[in-house]
Amino acid sequence: MVAAAPTLKYDIKDINLADLGNQRIEWAGREMPVLKQIRDRFAKEKPFAGIRIVACCHVTTETAHLAIALKAGGADALLIASNPLSTQDDVAACLVRDYSIPVYAIKGEDNDTYHRHVQTALDHRPNIIIDDGSDVVATMVKERQEQLKDLLGTTEETTTGIVRLEAMFKDGVLTFPAMNVNDADTKHFFDNRYGTGQSTLDGIFRATNVLLAGKNLVVAGYGWCGKGVAMRARGLGANVIVTEIDPIKAIEAAMDGFRVMPMDEAAKVGDVFVTVTGNKHIIRQEHFASMKDGAMVCNAGHFDIEIDLKSLATMAKEVKEVRNFTQQYILENGKSVIVLGEGRLVNLAAAEGHPSAVMDMSFANQALACEHLVKNQGSLEPGLHSIPADVDKEIARLKLQAMGITIDSLTPEQIEYMNSWTVGT
Amino acid sequence: MVAAAPTLKYDIKDINLADLGNQRIEWAGREMPVLKQIRDRFAKEKPFAGIRIVACCHVTTETAHLAIALKAGGADALLIASNPLSTQDDVAACLVRDYSIPVYAIKGEDNDTYHRHVQTALDHRPNIIIDDGSDVVATMVKERQEQLKDLLGTTEETTTGIVRLEAMFKDGVLTFPAMNVNDADTKHFFDNRYGTGQSTLDGIFRATNVLLAGKNLVVAGYGWCGKGVAMRARGLGANVIVTEIDPIKAIEAAMDGFRVMPMDEAAKVGDVFVTVTGNKHIIRQEHFASMKDGAMVCNAGHFDIEIDLKSLATMAKEVKEVRNFTQQYILENGKSVIVLGEGRLVNLAAAEGHPSAVMDMSFANQALACEHLVKNQGSLEPGLHSIPADVDKEIARLKLQAMGITIDSLTPEQIEYMNSWTVGT
Amino acid sequence: MVAAAPTLKYDIKDINLADLGNQRIEWAGREMPVLKQIRDRFAKEKPFAGIRIVACCHVTTETAHLAIALKAGGADALLIASNPLSTQDDVAACLVRDYSIPVYAIKGEDNDTYHRHVQTALDHRPNIIIDDGSDVVATMVKERQEQLKDLLGTTEETTTGIVRLEAMFKDGVLTFPAMNVNDADTKHFFDNRYGTGQSTLDGIFRATNVLLAGKNLVVAGYGWCGKGVAMRARGLGANVIVTEIDPIKAIEAAMDGFRVMPMDEAAKVGDVFVTVTGNKHIIRQEHFASMKDGAMVCNAGHFDIEIDLKSLATMAKEVKEVRNFTQQYILENGKSVIVLGEGRLVNLAAAEGHPSAVMDMSFANQALACEHLVKNQGSLEPGLHSIPADVDKEIARLKLQAMGITIDSLTPEQIEYMNSWTVGT
Amino acid sequence: MVAAAPTLKYDIKDINLADLGNQRIEWAGREMPVLKQIRDRFAKEKPFAGIRIVACCHVTTETAHLAIALKAGGADALLIASNPLSTQDDVAACLVRDYSIPVYAIKGEDNDTYHRHVQTALDHRPNIIIDDGSDVVATMVKERQEQLKDLLGTTEETTTGIVRLEAMFKDGVLTFPAMNVNDADTKHFFDNRYGTGQSTLDGIFRATNVLLAGKNLVVAGYGWCGKGVAMRARGLGANVIVTEIDPIKAIEAAMDGFRVMPMDEAAKVGDVFVTVTGNKHIIRQEHFASMKDGAMVCNAGHFDIEIDLKSLATMAKEVKEVRNFTQQYILENGKSVIVLGEGRLVNLAAAEGHPSAVMDMSFANQALACEHLVKNQGSLEPGLHSIPADVDKEIARLKLQAMGITIDSLTPEQIEYMNSWTVGT
Repeated sequence: MVAAAPTLKYDIKDINLADLGNQRIEWAGREMPVLKQIRDRFAKEKPFAGIRIVACCHVTTETAHLAIALKAGGADALLIASNPLSTQDDVAACLVRDYSIPVYAIKGEDNDTYHRHVQTALDHRPNIIIDDGSDVVATMVKERQEQLKDLLGTTEETTTGIVRLEAMFKDGVLTFPAMNVNDADTKHFFDNRYGTGQSTLDGIFRATNVLLAGKNLVVAGYGWCGKGVAMRARGLGANVIVTEIDPIKAIEAAMDGFRVMPMDEAAKVGDVFVTVTGNKHIIRQEHFASMKDGAMVCNAGHFDIEIDLKSLATMAKEVKEVRNFTQQYILENGKSVIVLGEGRLVNLAAAEGHPSAVMDMSFANQALACEHLVKNQGSLEPGLHSIPADVDKEIARLKLQAMGITIDSLTPEQIEYMNSWTVGT
Repeated sequence: MVAAAPTLKYDIKDINLADLGNQRIEWAGREMPVLKQIRDRFAKEKPFAGIRIVACCHVTTETAHLAIALKAGGADALLIASNPLSTQDDVAACLVRDYSIPVYAIKGEDNDTYHRHVQTALDHRPNIIIDDGSDVVATMVKERQEQLKDLLGTTEETTTGIVRLEAMFKDGVLTFPAMNVNDADTKHFFDNRYGTGQSTLDGIFRATNVLLAGKNLVVAGYGWCGKGVAMRARGLGANVIVTEIDPIKAIEAAMDGFRVMPMDEAAKVGDVFVTVTGNKHIIRQEHFASMKDGAMVCNAGHFDIEIDLKSLATMAKEVKEVRNFTQQYILENGKSVIVLGEGRLVNLAAAEGHPSAVMDMSFANQALACEHLVKNQGSLEPGLHSIPADVDKEIARLKLQAMGITIDSLTPEQIEYMNSWTVGT
Repeated sequence: MVAAAPTLKYDIKDINLADLGNQRIEWAGREMPVLKQIRDRFAKEKPFAGIRIVACCHVTTETAHLAIALKAGGADALLIASNPLSTQDDVAACLVRDYSIPVYAIKGEDNDTYHRHVQTALDHRPNIIIDDGSDVVATMVKERQEQLKDLLGTTEETTTGIVRLEAMFKDGVLTFPAMNVNDADTKHFFDNRYGTGQSTLDGIFRATNVLLAGKNLVVAGYGWCGKGVAMRARGLGANVIVTEIDPIKAIEAAMDGFRVMPMDEAAKVGDVFVTVTGNKHIIRQEHFASMKDGAMVCNAGHFDIEIDLKSLATMAKEVKEVRNFTQQYILENGKSVIVLGEGRLVNLAAAEGHPSAVMDMSFANQALACEHLVKNQGSLEPGLHSIPADVDKEIARLKLQAMGITIDSLTPEQIEYMNSWTVGT
Repeated sequence: MVAAAPTLKYDIKDINLADLGNQRIEWAGREMPVLKQIRDRFAKEKPFAGIRIVACCHVTTETAHLAIALKAGGADALLIASNPLSTQDDVAACLVRDYSIPVYAIKGEDNDTYHRHVQTALDHRPNIIIDDGSDVVATMVKERQEQLKDLLGTTEETTTGIVRLEAMFKDGVLTFPAMNVNDADTKHFFDNRYGTGQSTLDGIFRATNVLLAGKNLVVAGYGWCGKGVAMRARGLGANVIVTEIDPIKAIEAAMDGFRVMPMDEAAKVGDVFVTVTGNKHIIRQEHFASMKDGAMVCNAGHFDIEIDLKSLATMAKEVKEVRNFTQQYILENGKSVIVLGEGRLVNLAAAEGHPSAVMDMSFANQALACEHLVKNQGSLEPGLHSIPADVDKEIARLKLQAMGITIDSLTPEQIEYMNSWTVGT
C-alpha cells in the first residue's frame, strides 16, 4: 500500500476511517474473483496508460475494486458519488489513503456538494466517463461541449441512464460512443434481478425490522429489478402485488402468480411499497391519501423521484425520525405514511447495496467496456453500443469457474446439427 | 354447422369421433378469448379471400380454433400434423365434418404417412405456410423450388424452426419472408415457459403417476421452455438439476437456486430427465449406462432426437410397454431405463399439449402474422421478420382484458420524463 | 399367479381387464419398497393366519399391494370400494383372477350397490376392518352389534373417519380399539400433504387441461391436505386464496403468503375452487350465486358433501357433460359453474389417486396397525390408539433407505446432552 | 413517563441511551397489537399485584413490551439477559429510566457477569420465572431449593428449555408447574418458523452482505426453526441442504425439495451453514477440516454450543475480525472458516432478533401463562402444562383482527355434522 501523495486532493468525510474501509474492501474481494483476474491482467498490460477516467458511482466496497483495477491498468482515475446517501465513508477514506485515488463523496452530502463534485469531475477532463444514471454525461453535454473532443466515450450501467442516453441520441446530442453495460446479460440478469432483489429486502429489514410474512408488498414495475424484488419478497412470505404500465409484463406477473392491479387499488391494500420503474411520481398524492395507517414506502429505482415526497410533505402535519433512515409522515387525516431512506435507493441508503458477487460481473463489464473504448478509439460510431457477446460470455465463464460449476459443451455432432436445416422429422 | 362437402378429401382416423371433437373444441374456446376476437374481425374483413394456407401444426383443440379463424377470414386452409403422436383424432374429425377443413393427420401415423401428408400439403400450392419446426418449408425449398413464386411467406413458432430458418438464411436459400412468431413476447414468454412448464409435468403425471416430491429431476436446457419446466418441477417438490452449454444460462439457473452440472454427473443422480434443448443426442449411450435403475427419460423439445433412443435400443435386451406411452428398456447391465412418449414431446404424446390459455396468444400471433404477410405482400424483404411490437402489445392488452386485469397507464408528466434527458439528480 | 378359485365370489366390472390391472399393479410396486419388505416378512411369519379382514378402500393399484400383503400374511381378506368413483376396474379384475382376493367394487356404482357391498363385507364377519371414512365401522355399530364380539379392532386412515370415530367414542359406542393410522407422522405428513397436493392438481389437469398460471385458486381448509394443495397450486403459478374457520390455521396461511378471506368474498374472485375441509356444504347456494362465469369447483375431501350439488342443481336450467368427469351447470342467471368429478375426490375420480410413493408409507402403517391389533388382542382399551412411535420411525427409516438417503445419528456426547439439564449457558 | 426511582438498582451499559430505546420500543409496538390489548386489560385488572416476577429474556424492544405489560398488571418485575450478545443496551436504558423496571443486562457481558445477574435475579425471590433456555430455573433447582416454596411456577418458550425441563421432570426435580409456552400453536408455528426464518437470514445479511442466490446453504435440523430457515433461504435463491437425525423430518425435507445428507458430506459442499438443532457440537472438528475455503458458519439454535468453536480455535493459526460480528479462522491447512456472531444466535447477535409481529403472539402467550399460574395457584400439578387451547385460539383471533383478516365460522349445520358419526356416504 502506498501512502496518499501529499498533493492528492479529495473531499471525503474522514481519512481516519481508512482502516475499516480497508478491512471491508478486502472482505468484498472474496466474492469478486472475475474482476480480480481482470485487474491482474490490467496490471501487466496497462491498457489505460495516459487515460483519464472519471467514475461516478455508488462509492461502495465493490466500486473500490473497480477503481483499483482501473488504476492498476494505468488510468488516472477519479471517483465521485452518484447518489448522496450511498457513499460508504470508510471506503472513500481507504481509496484516498491506501490507493491514492482522489475521491469526492460524503454520505449525506447535499445537492450543492453533489453538483460541485460533478464539476470537479469534469475539471479532471476525462477521456472516459463511467456513469451511473448519466448525470455527468448530461452535464458535460449541457455545459462543457468543448471537452467532448477529448472524450473516447462513456459507459452506463443503469436502465435509467440508458433511457436518458436514448433520449439524448434522439435529440442528436449523443455525439460519442456510449457502452451499454446495462444490457450485457451478465449485468442485468444478475445485478438487476438477484442483486436488487436481495439488497432491497435487506434494506427494508435494516430500516424497519418488520416481518414480511403475511404482509401485502406492492412492487411498482416488473422489469428485471421488479422481478427480482417480487421473487424475493414472495420467498420471504409476503403476498406480492405488481403494478405495471406494460401489458406484456403485466401478464407475466399474473402468470408468475402475483396479483396485478393499478396503483389506485394497490394503494388501499399494500403494507409495504417498493418502486422500481425508472419513472417519476409512481406513488403520488392520490395514493398516499388512500393508504392504510402505517403503510411503508421505499424506492429501489435509480433516482429519488419515484415517490413524490414533496406532495407527501404538503399532506403531513408532522414528520419524525422513527428509526435510522426511517421517517414517519403524520398526515392531516390522522394516518401515517412511513418513508424509508428518504425515497432514495433503499438498498444503498439503509443497507450496503448489491452484494459483491453480482457487482463482480457488472464491474467486469465496466472495466472491459472501458478497455473496449480505448482499443477501438476512432472506429466506434456515436451512439449506444452493446458489450460484445464474447466478452459477455467470457465473464460468465470466469464466474462459473469461480463458483466451482462445470457445464457441458456441444459435441461436434451437435454443432453440425445446429448449423444444418436439412435434417427434419 | 355445415356438413362436409361431398368432395372434401382428407386422411384422418375416424370421422365418427367428430362429436367428441366438437365438444372438446368448444371447451378449449372458453380459454381463447383473444383468438375469438380476431376470428370475429376476420369473418367481417375476409383478409384471406383467395389465399391458400397450409398449416403444419399439432392437431389439437387449440389449433382447431386457429384453422377456423383462418377459414372465417376467407382462407382456403389445409391442415397436416407436425408430429406423429400429437394428433387428437376427434379434433381432426370435427374440423372435417363440421368446418369442411381438409385435415391429413392420424395419431400414431408412421414416417411414410407423415411425409406423404407433407407432399399433399405442398400439392395444395400454399401462398402461406404456417410451420412448426420448418419441415414443410424445408421440403418446399429442397423439392419444390418452382412453387416459391406463389409463396407470400411463412410463419414459424418454435425455437427449433427458427434455428433452421436462420441456417437456411445463412445458406442463401431463404428467399421469402418468414414471420418469427416465436420471438413475439406474447408467444415465447408464455407458451414456452408457462405452457411447456405445466404441460410437460402433466404429461409425466399421466404417463407415470409418480410422485415428483423428493425426486431429482434433471432439466437439460435452461431456455424459456427449460425455465418453465424447472420452475414448475420445483413447485411440485422435485429437486431440480439443470444442464446447460451456455455459461450465462448456467449462472441464471444456479442463482435461481438449482444445481447445475454436466449431464455426465446428472445422469448418475437423476430420477426423471427432461430434455428441452432443440439439439440432438443430449442423453446418449454413456449417460444411459450410468443411470440409476428405473430412471425415467422424456423430451419436451420439438423433435424426437434429443434422446438417443437408437443407442438405447442397442443396449437393451428387452423393451416392454409398462403403461400407456411408457416403455421399459431392460439393459444388459440389469438396470432399466423408462422412456415416456417414445422420446417425442411428452406433453403432446401423453397429455393434451399446451393449455388453451397460452395457445390463445401464440395463435393470435400466428393469425396476425398471416394477415401481415398478406397486407405487406411485395414489400417484405426475404428473411426473418419480427412480429410488429404494436401487434404484440395489442395481443397482451386483449388478453389482460379477458383475464379481468386492469393496469396503469403513463401520466402526461411521466411520458415527458421518459423522453427527456436533462432532468437529473 | 394362481387362477381364481372356481368358488370365489365377487362383483366387479369385467374380469378380462385383469391383464391391464396386473401391468399397472406391477408398475405401482416400483415405488412401494417399504410395503414390499413388510409383505415379504408377513409371507414368512403369517401373522394373520385364521384372521378375517375386510378392507374398505379406494380400489387402486396401491391398495392392491396392501391386499396382497395381508393375504401373504395369511389373512382371509375381502375388499370393497370406499367410494363409487375411485375404483380402478382393471385392478379389481387382477386381484380376483390372479390373487383370488374377493373384490366388490365397480367404478361408477350407484348408492344401492355401494350399500349392498358394505353388507357383503359385514357378512364376511371380519375380525379386523380397515376402513376409509368409517362407513363400514359405523354400519356395523348401527346394524350388527352382535358381530362386535369377533372384532379385534379397526384401522382408519382419513381425517374424516377419525372425526367420526371420536364422535362415536363420545357417544359411548366405540367399544373396541381403533388404530388411528391417520395420525402417524409417516401417514399424514406425506399422504395428506404431498399426495393430496400433487394428485388433486393432476385431477384438475386431466379433467380440464386448464392453465393454472394466473388463475385465482381457492382452497377451502388449511389442514395438511389443504396445505398440500395450496403449496402445489402456487408452485404451478396460481394465485392461491385460503378460507378457514380456525384462526391459527388462518394466520399460518397468511404468513405462508396466501390471501385469506371468507368464502363469501372468495366466491367472487375465484377461478378454481378446491374443498378439503372434511365438513359439509363448504360451497353452497349463496356462493354459487356470486361466482364468475365459468368458475370451476372440485373437492379433495373425503366425502362428496363439501360442495352442495343439490342446491346447485336447483339453480341450474341445464347440466351438460363438457369433458370426461366435467359437467357444466348453466344457471338461471346465465352464468355457468363447472363441476369436476361430481364433487367426489377429484384426484381419484379424474386422475389415479395418490402416487404410490406416499401410499407406500400409508399402507405400511395400515399393515402394521393390523398386525398390532392381532398381537395385542385382549390388551388394548376401547377407543382410538396411535401407531406406536417406533413403528412410525421404522417406516420412515425404510423409506429413506429406499430413497437412497443417509442421515446423521446422535453421537454419545449428544445423547448425553439431550438427557441432561444441568449444563447451561 | 416516570423518572427512575432514586433507589432503583440496575446494571446496564449506559442510561443515556434511553431516548433511542424509547423511540425503538415505540416502533416495535406498532406490530404488537395483541400484547397491547392484554396490557390494557392488565392495567385495569392488576392480576399481578404483589407478585414478584423474574424474566430472563433477550432484552429487545419486544421484551420491553412484555415487561411493561407485566408491570402494568401490578407485578414487581425484574429483567435479566438470557444471552450475552442479544441485549439491546438502549432498550435496557429506557426500561430503567422510563419504566422503573430493574434491568441487569449488557451487550457483550462475560460469563461471570451473566452468572452474577442470574444470582441477582434469584435474590429477587421470584414467585414466577419467565425463562428462556431454563437457566434460571435450573440454577434455582440446583442452588436455591429453599426458595421453591415461594414459586408459583415458571414459563418457558424455547424448545431447548422444554427439553431441559423434561429431563428435570424425569430426574424428579421439577416439583412445580411449568407452562410450556413453546408448544402453543401461536408460538412455535410463527415465532420458530417465520420469526427465526427471516431474522436468521437478516443476521447473515448484516454480518456478511453476501449474495445467497447460487450458494449452497446447509441447515442442520428440520424442526420448526429449521423449516423456517430452509424455506426462507430457498426463497432467497440458495440451494438448501438439510441434515437431520430424525428419519421422519428427513423425508419431509426431501419431499419439500431439499437435498438431505449427513453433515460429513454437507461439510464438503456448503457455502453457508446454519445450525438449529438444540443439540451440541453439530459442526465439529472433522467437519471444519473438510470445508471449502471461506465457508461461513452460524447458529440459530438457543445455546452457543452447536458449533464446536473450541475445536476450531485449536485448528486455527490465526483468528481475525473481518467485519462486525464476523471472524475469520485461518486454519493450518491454509483454508479459512468464517464464524458469524461467535456462534451465538446470529439473528440476535448480528440483527435485531425476531420481528415484533411474531413476538407479539409469543409474548401474549407468556403474559397469559403468567396470569394462568396466578389464577390457578395451588391447583396445578408439578410438571409441564400446555397453554389452554382457548387461550391459544383467542390470541390467534386477536392477531387476525389486527391484520385485518376475516375468516369463516361454522354454520349450525356444519357443527352438527362434525359431532355426528351416523351420516356417511
